[in-house]
Amino acid sequence: MRPSGRKTDQMRKVTFERGVSKHAEGSCLVKFGDTHVLCTASLEDKTPPWLRNSGKGWVTAEYGMLPRATGDRMKREAASGKQGGRTLEIQRLIGRSLRAVVDLEALGERQITVDCDVIQADGGTRTASITGGWIALRDCLKWMETRGMIKMDRVLKDHVAAISCGIFANQPVIDLDYLEDSSAETDANFVMTGAGGIVEIQGTAEGKPFSEEEFATLMGLAKAGIADLVTLQKEAVSA
Amino acid sequence: MRPSGRKTDQMRKVTFERGVSKHAEGSCLVKFGDTHVLCTASLEDKTPPWLRNSGKGWVTAEYGMLPRATGDRMKREAASGKQGGRTLEIQRLIGRSLRAVVDLEALGERQITVDCDVIQADGGTRTASITGGWIALRDCLKWMETRGMIKMDRVLKDHVAAISCGIFANQPVIDLDYLEDSSAETDANFVMTGAGGIVEIQGTAEGKPFSEEEFATLMGLAKAGIADLVTLQKEAVSA
Amino acid sequence: MRPSGRKTDQMRKVTFERGVSKHAEGSCLVKFGDTHVLCTASLEDKTPPWLRNSGKGWVTAEYGMLPRATGDRMKREAASGKQGGRTLEIQRLIGRSLRAVVDLEALGERQITVDCDVIQADGGTRTASITGGWIALRDCLKWMETRGMIKMDRVLKDHVAAISCGIFANQPVIDLDYLEDSSAETDANFVMTGAGGIVEIQGTAEGKPFSEEEFATLMGLAKAGIADLVTLQKEAVSA
Amino acid sequence: MRPSGRKTDQMRKVTFERGVSKHAEGSCLVKFGDTHVLCTASLEDKTPPWLRNSGKGWVTAEYGMLPRATGDRMKREAASGKQGGRTLEIQRLIGRSLRAVVDLEALGERQITVDCDVIQADGGTRTASITGGWIALRDCLKWMETRGMIKMDRVLKDHVAAISCGIFANQPVIDLDYLEDSSAETDANFVMTGAGGIVEIQGTAEGKPFSEEEFATLMGLAKAGIADLVTLQKEAVSA
Amino acid sequence: MRPSGRKTDQMRKVTFERGVSKHAEGSCLVKFGDTHVLCTASLEDKTPPWLRNSGKGWVTAEYGMLPRATGDRMKREAASGKQGGRTLEIQRLIGRSLRAVVDLEALGERQITVDCDVIQADGGTRTASITGGWIALRDCLKWMETRGMIKMDRVLKDHVAAISCGIFANQPVIDLDYLEDSSAETDANFVMTGAGGIVEIQGTAEGKPFSEEEFATLMGLAKAGIADLVTLQKEAVSA
Amino acid sequence: MRPSGRKTDQMRKVTFERGVSKHAEGSCLVKFGDTHVLCTASLEDKTPPWLRNSGKGWVTAEYGMLPRATGDRMKREAASGKQGGRTLEIQRLIGRSLRAVVDLEALGERQITVDCDVIQADGGTRTASITGGWIALRDCLKWMETRGMIKMDRVLKDHVAAISCGIFANQPVIDLDYLEDSSAETDANFVMTGAGGIVEIQGTAEGKPFSEEEFATLMGLAKAGIADLVTLQKEAVSA
Repeated sequence: MRPSGRKTDQMRKVTFERGVSKHAEGSCLVKFGDTHVLCTASLEDKTPPWLRNSGKGWVTAEYGMLPRATGDRMKREAASGKQGGRTLEIQRLIGRSLRAVVDLEALGERQITVDCDVIQADGGTRTASITGGWIALRDCLKWMETRGMIKMDRVLKDHVAAISCGIFANQPVIDLDYLEDSSAETDANFVMTGAGGIVEIQGTAEGKPFSEEEFATLMGLAKAGIADLVTLQKEAVSA
Repeated sequence: MRPSGRKTDQMRKVTFERGVSKHAEGSCLVKFGDTHVLCTASLEDKTPPWLRNSGKGWVTAEYGMLPRATGDRMKREAASGKQGGRTLEIQRLIGRSLRAVVDLEALGERQITVDCDVIQADGGTRTASITGGWIALRDCLKWMETRGMIKMDRVLKDHVAAISCGIFANQPVIDLDYLEDSSAETDANFVMTGAGGIVEIQGTAEGKPFSEEEFATLMGLAKAGIADLVTLQKEAVSA
Repeated sequence: MRPSGRKTDQMRKVTFERGVSKHAEGSCLVKFGDTHVLCTASLEDKTPPWLRNSGKGWVTAEYGMLPRATGDRMKREAASGKQGGRTLEIQRLIGRSLRAVVDLEALGERQITVDCDVIQADGGTRTASITGGWIALRDCLKWMETRGMIKMDRVLKDHVAAISCGIFANQPVIDLDYLEDSSAETDANFVMTGAGGIVEIQGTAEGKPFSEEEFATLMGLAKAGIADLVTLQKEAVSA
Repeated sequence: MRPSGRKTDQMRKVTFERGVSKHAEGSCLVKFGDTHVLCTASLEDKTPPWLRNSGKGWVTAEYGMLPRATGDRMKREAASGKQGGRTLEIQRLIGRSLRAVVDLEALGERQITVDCDVIQADGGTRTASITGGWIALRDCLKWMETRGMIKMDRVLKDHVAAISCGIFANQPVIDLDYLEDSSAETDANFVMTGAGGIVEIQGTAEGKPFSEEEFATLMGLAKAGIADLVTLQKEAVSA
Repeated sequence: MRPSGRKTDQMRKVTFERGVSKHAEGSCLVKFGDTHVLCTASLEDKTPPWLRNSGKGWVTAEYGMLPRATGDRMKREAASGKQGGRTLEIQRLIGRSLRAVVDLEALGERQITVDCDVIQADGGTRTASITGGWIALRDCLKWMETRGMIKMDRVLKDHVAAISCGIFANQPVIDLDYLEDSSAETDANFVMTGAGGIVEIQGTAEGKPFSEEEFATLMGLAKAGIADLVTLQKEAVSA
Repeated sequence: MRPSGRKTDQMRKVTFERGVSKHAEGSCLVKFGDTHVLCTASLEDKTPPWLRNSGKGWVTAEYGMLPRATGDRMKREAASGKQGGRTLEIQRLIGRSLRAVVDLEALGERQITVDCDVIQADGGTRTASITGGWIALRDCLKWMETRGMIKMDRVLKDHVAAISCGIFANQPVIDLDYLEDSSAETDANFVMTGAGGIVEIQGTAEGKPFSEEEFATLMGLAKAGIADLVTLQKEAVSA
């Protein structure tokens, strides 16, 4: 039995609230149950130095957590004077995942920064960030299309979404919340495209090692879940 | 004429949404028009080193802005490796303002940190932070009272709220939004208690110096506005 | 009774020693009693990036304290790896105050940095810095005038000086020394021009809130004190 | 054809040179072809704060690259003032991988730090670090056993080793060198135990997404390769 | 001919002004011509961690330069976020030099920090710091003796003073000022005790290497100069 | 008697292994007994900003120690966030020493960075770094000559090598190992050219001051030792 009473293949309720920022070119408040992440996409006219005069643009991501997004207050990273390893690891993952579905040449010499700020955390913040970040990025590209800067469909090649799966109490389950995550034996994050291609896989044995079969089961759960997330993304952007 | 069409003594619509955080002992999403600040109050059982074994507690504040809370994306302070002077100045102000209405001995050897994170900025983020921070602090103290840790009324001596006033287009006005703030000749922030005592005054001539009379007019506007804010706080916490 | 035996409206002995630096374009050792601040004005031919090609110059300030300027030795900020919030707050105030009397267009695309380094502290270091910083700035501009770079009177529009006032032992007093400052109920800093215009007001209740009347009394003390400081500045620069 | 002329399932020559450090309790210079990593295991008598009085110990890892380990000289991280995201990500991975085969209670309240310093890089530094780090860790535990501090076999539960696989020129290949790594379409790192359990999987599409089948092929390559690495580890420690 | 007209073996006018700080236990403003260094000695009741419960105390030094102590304004190290290599090197030298004449056991478990802050620089700031730092340290120890904490003569075993010598325009000269220092072929700093023992020697060829004979000449100049400095120290502390 | 059984004027076995790096333009693993330093010389086509358009190049050095190069593991400087004073002091010394034998104009507008990374430490790491760094630098210049970029003999004017001497157990000895170094009364480092010119002298009394005569004895030892090192360098590069 899962603490939340969910079935093993049942994700939490996922919602996307678009256009939540007065300023950002694209924005989305994504909720996976009690995990709430505010995603904004910001367009800048300059690229990173290594792309200057290459004709190509860049999509990058930054990730942060409000200090009391979690059960115990965490030290503010701005006050600590540096971003921790976990933060850097997650924002690199978000950036890679979003770039996997973007044609950087079609974007042109511009940079889009997707900020994913966790307002409230209950497990799965990185997968929510990717899934909601795609909406913010898409709406930023739409904003650009409206102004004749690009063709959105040429820049954005596909959907991308992510989900965590894990082995909790000897059962493979999808979309772990904090209670499950903190005692799971194995924890894996999957990032896939709308077409079902795999963009990123990260699996970690927290306690005892896992087998190839267990991993295949987790991947099966993830495929189904991500297909559902992509459907929800489609509904959200067609609204 | 103000850009928003407001009258010179008319504040923006102010709302408090309490209990927005699943984790924090007290929390409040405060809105002054398009300025939105998420305030959380976090209780910790230890005090800063200089108060150890003093029998006294501490209330402190931290302030941050999401990178795209503003019209142009700002560099994330965690990535820069330090909090800027403006950030430090504001969070010192919030902390002082809240402590002005707290009996630190009655609180006992505990620390409450009030985090004020600007989700969206449109001028007046520091005054919104103080005004909403009071709600979060109060609800944290209520939470403690419910657990028999303190008597809320012995710790929290009064309300505290804040408003900005300024001279815009030669007119003294209250509660400047970003458009007004960025071209105001004079900008002043007032922090007062429910009883009308002054906790903090900060007035700055952005362009030409101002006179004692002008300053008195701003203070008059502020007194009326803060009285209204205290009324709204009372309604919010009695709901 | 004040610890120093001074009358409530009596400032400490204020002196300006000009030209104390062999290198700086303008310099002044200012003393407010036992508070000694070395102010140097340094001219550079380049402006900050945001003013490039604007035709305007900039005046900025930096503030520091020698580690043993105070009763207990403080950690050296260079060794700590960052300037504290108090330092940043004070140097922002000094910069704003000096810019209030400078015509940045008449200055041309140059930057003047006024360094205020506290050699010995006994309360009132920020107000001494502003008051003495004006002398250093003025002498730097004079140096420039001598070389045909500017007309000093077109760049420097007025005097600016500052003083602290506070309520100590229930009495409004001017120019608090450290003993008074550390136990004052209310502490306010005023920055005004030679013409009597207000540039900056900062009032803080350290203990109980203060009233509008009390604040008006403090402002009255400040006006008289600053008028005296401006007279002393005039004597100093005419010497 | 692979640039090195290797077969798709052929690893580079792997060697372990044990006891290379005069000072460290365990040490190993591991070479995967031209990738050379110096691994040292250092025993300390204290644990991290969060384990104090828990009866448990800790194994952690740090990772670094000499500035000219790579084709172009990289900026020294000590001079930059911080470890980059890639460094932090890798050292977290090494630490987790080694802890997966350690019984922290049997270790007792001690910490072992495994430093993995890349002397020369040619792809696969993180997998070499894990594989060689296990040798250094094992020899440190042996050192402790010799002094009657622990029973090595009770602390060290199994071997752990790692290998990268990827899709290069449309072919799944094992143990990518730098030339392959920098143009691979997909890159995956596998960490497994001697018993064949999976400890960590990280797969990333560098260009187009990959399929479940492709991933299964990579895992098959990895299983065989890691089995070989474990055999080599066994030979090395029995020497 | 030296730019200053001095003879090759002629030091600049050296003066010590004692007791210049209201707060420090010992203080001295030392001038070597236009090089002015403010030295303060601060007593603290705790030692560095590595001496705790050893019965021994510690003497350490910190060194800083005001930003406009030099011909061109230097960036403030507190603003840069770190002390440069030159600063660290100099303060380590000052600390070693002073400790060479202190009996740390006789001092007892206390730390004295000697801060040397360069108010104005014209070459030779490190040697002035050592020479003046000795006065500040001695007066701090006298302060302690007066309070019955130590016997000064048991703690302070001898004088220590320092001077620079160099080869300028093919001539060995003593006490180089900035003009000489910046074009000297060889630059050497000598630290010696009152008894003539050598504490520290640092010689550097700026251009072409120097010979053993040249170095011996510089040492001869230094011995005479330091003897004079010790005489001046004796006069200063007997005043 | 020396702990190692060496005679007072006997250096440890010194070896140079050239070409140890696949990537660097010049490299050398230098060993002075158990002190092992990996030196790499990296060529870059740009100079530091202050030499731009000067026609001159630059040679600089960086120094680091692997965390477990020493008997007790030291904190990794990259993790600490800064290079310590000792590190900065040593790398400044290495850079100055190498530049003493380089004609920067003949080098042209290029920079060579010599990285000296201590793999294992047993005293004398800075002198080994200079002596081995010269080999790496020379081989980098040879690499450039082969490509027609420079004439090596016009850029590299002479050999440079370094050795430590000290007074251990009342005996002047050469090439101190860690055991000697940590209890020596006096420690001196000498840097000299092939022609016997002195480039740098650093002598420090660790305990009681030393005399001019003692220092002369140390210099005598150093001259003989450095002459031997230069002979070894010549043999190494002619191999």
